[in-house]
Amino acid sequence: MKLYEFAPAPNARRVSLFLAEKGIEIERVPVDVRGGANLTDAFRAMSANGKIPLLELDDGSYLCESVAICRYLDETFPSTPSLFGDTPLARARIEMWHRIVELDGLLPAFQAFRNISGVYQDREHCVPEWGEESRRRVRQFLPRLEHRLSRSPYVAGEQYSVADIAAYVLADFCVQRLSITLDEYPYLQAWLARIEARPALRRPG
Amino acid sequence: MKLYEFAPAPNARRVSLFLAEKGIEIERVPVDVRGGANLTDAFRAMSANGKIPLLELDDGSYLCESVAICRYLDETFPSTPSLFGDTPLARARIEMWHRIVELDGLLPAFQAFRNISGVYQDREHCVPEWGEESRRRVRQFLPRLEHRLSRSPYVAGEQYSVADIAAYVLADFCVQRLSITLDEYPYLQAWLARIEARPALRRPG
Repeated sequence: MKLYEFAPAPNARRVSLFLAEKGIEIERVPVDVRGGANLTDAFRAMSANGKIPLLELDDGSYLCESVAICRYLDETFPSTPSLFGDTPLARARIEMWHRIVELDGLLPAFQAFRNISGVYQDREHCVPEWGEESRRRVRQFLPRLEHRLSRSPYVAGEQYSVADIAAYVLADFCVQRLSITLDEYPYLQAWLARIEARPALRRPG
Repeated sequence: MKLYEFAPAPNARRVSLFLAEKGIEIERVPVDVRGGANLTDAFRAMSANGKIPLLELDDGSYLCESVAICRYLDETFPSTPSLFGDTPLARARIEMWHRIVELDGLLPAFQAFRNISGVYQDREHCVPEWGEESRRRVRQFLPRLEHRLSRSPYVAGEQYSVADIAAYVLADFCVQRLSITLDEYPYLQAWLARIEARPALRRPG
């Protein structure tokens, strides 16, 4: 297998953190997304959404969408605990929280960054007012995440899961890309410290 | 179990179509979302995202997020074929296409409708320019869906899956809510006819 990625992109980072947590080593192929290397016909023929991360399987077929890639790897490398859950109810709870973090946190964060910065204005029409509104929605989501982490050691419950990976990437994106500080959220800070103490976070990725 | 829903909402419809396809009967509790019944403290205490659909389990706990609800029901009613896939690779391909339909089709469609119509302007700031841009993105997605359906009988491959349910709800939303006609897409039309011939589509829901 080979993983096509653009390391700074948050969705590539989700897969990298997942691989590190599971201890999976895989060949990496860098793709210059900022330079438009994912816009070529050759890349689009491989990636159904035209985006990275993209996993090339040993049979020559491809999987895109970071969560689909992680779910596939979770099931094909079962030697470590599942990050998607071990029972129907655990899987549903993890999916619920994962989607809440994505839909109410990560996606507004991406829309805020792209529409305010215009980083991809060579390929999309940006609406700065929507960028600012999206940034406000990210700020409104953070107290909800803080409330959750005041009652639960990890986002989806007692165990570390893909929902924590998404929330960790969100927290970092808030600070690095959206100038949103997290200092006012003590439970979120304590959770960040628990996440950053994990061996997977101390490896490159 | 009980399902709290607002029947006209597209995410409630996804769960209804899923239940009909699986032949699952479940008690329904209508929630007046337009009237703000989901904004009360009582409802928020049940629903982690403050939204419908919301599944109350027999132990008194709750699951929100339509896809998490469907995945849970898929696994707890295994008497009919899984709509999420039966092998790791099938599950990954269905998740990939399901997410493409959601992220590149349904979410822009929802953002288009909400920002153009202002249907929820009592509870959110609307940006009409983003609504129009989102509508353009939905229109740009439809040729991709047409291309996919020119090569595959169903969205994720040879079998009907949750990705078809999401795409069906999207197609209907385009026509009903966004005044986007689908007449120029013959493969999409043929697929719609296949979907609408399914017994589940002929029942109410």
